[in-house]
Amino acid sequence: MKYGIAIFPSKAVQDIANSYRKRYDPNYALIPPHITVKERFDATEEEIKEITAELHNIAKETKPFPLIIKKVSSFSPVTNTVYLKVEPVEGLIELSNKFYEGIFPNERTYAFVPHITIGQELSTDEHSDVYGSLQMEKFDIHEQVDRFQLLYQLENGSWSVHETFKFGEDC
Amino acid sequence: MKYGIAIFPSKAVQDIANSYRKRYDPNYALIPPHITVKERFDATEEEIKEITAELHNIAKETKPFPLIIKKVSSFSPVTNTVYLKVEPVEGLIELSNKFYEGIFPNERTYAFVPHITIGQELSTDEHSDVYGSLQMEKFDIHEQVDRFQLLYQLENGSWSVHETFKFGEDC
Repeated sequence: MKYGIAIFPSKAVQDIANSYRKRYDPNYALIPPHITVKERFDATEEEIKEITAELHNIAKETKPFPLIIKKVSSFSPVTNTVYLKVEPVEGLIELSNKFYEGIFPNERTYAFVPHITIGQELSTDEHSDVYGSLQMEKFDIHEQVDRFQLLYQLENGSWSVHETFKFGEDC
Repeated sequence: MKYGIAIFPSKAVQDIANSYRKRYDPNYALIPPHITVKERFDATEEEIKEITAELHNIAKETKPFPLIIKKVSSFSPVTNTVYLKVEPVEGLIELSNKFYEGIFPNERTYAFVPHITIGQELSTDEHSDVYGSLQMEKFDIHEQVDRFQLLYQLENGSWSVHETFKFGEDC
């Protein structure tokens, strides 16, 4: 089965992201707005039990950290993906790094650039339009992250939550 | 904010349900296939803290129970909703009842008929076609339920998971 680990921002931030995703993100219906902290990986049912136990350990030792968003950015020219840039605070970087060590599959396709996608698979013209109009917008989002979620992917491409892991708790 | 409590079946069952929902359920993109155990209710951030604590208590004292599906049924003529009928085993009924007692908003729109919706808002003709062709199908689904999830609704109507509650655990 395919799994992934994500952080979901508050409803307010998800609503902002969705207002753009609705028009610009073909994955709009597959998963709510999120920060991917571990990219999709394969695991068997046995492996996921072990991984779940390790995720509890990691959650227990993790302290809440801020989720800060000030602006929109883009992965262009690598991909025409526009996103809410999430400030790479230490707590977030450290958390994501832990998901690529030890028992976890550790191949990483990209360097970790924390973000919430709001548009992707845009044509070059669309990308210029969208990014051009959002580039100058200022955001002032500052909230606390206190949990992450382990998700699995259904055959239609959508994601279901397997479990929530709250920081400072070990079960 | 709007909250709800649901049980998600295994990926295998979600995939089966989605194969129908894709064509017959306008809510297909808003939430993965699920059993609603508490209908949508309003709660403030303060109230949801208290409710979350109570959900931990309930989860702790709940034992895993079977999820059994043998056939498709319909709410017609009340609504043209077709669903995988979930056997009303004691553990499931007791769990849902707890979400309508004590600190929980306790109005219940319908009697609790456990189900996984696979088609809704069908025209009378569509309903006859779909239900007619699925009515004779036999399912042999038998799995264990060991958790429930508290979800909240975004402005676009989709649902995000707030927290998972595993039976036998109190945090």
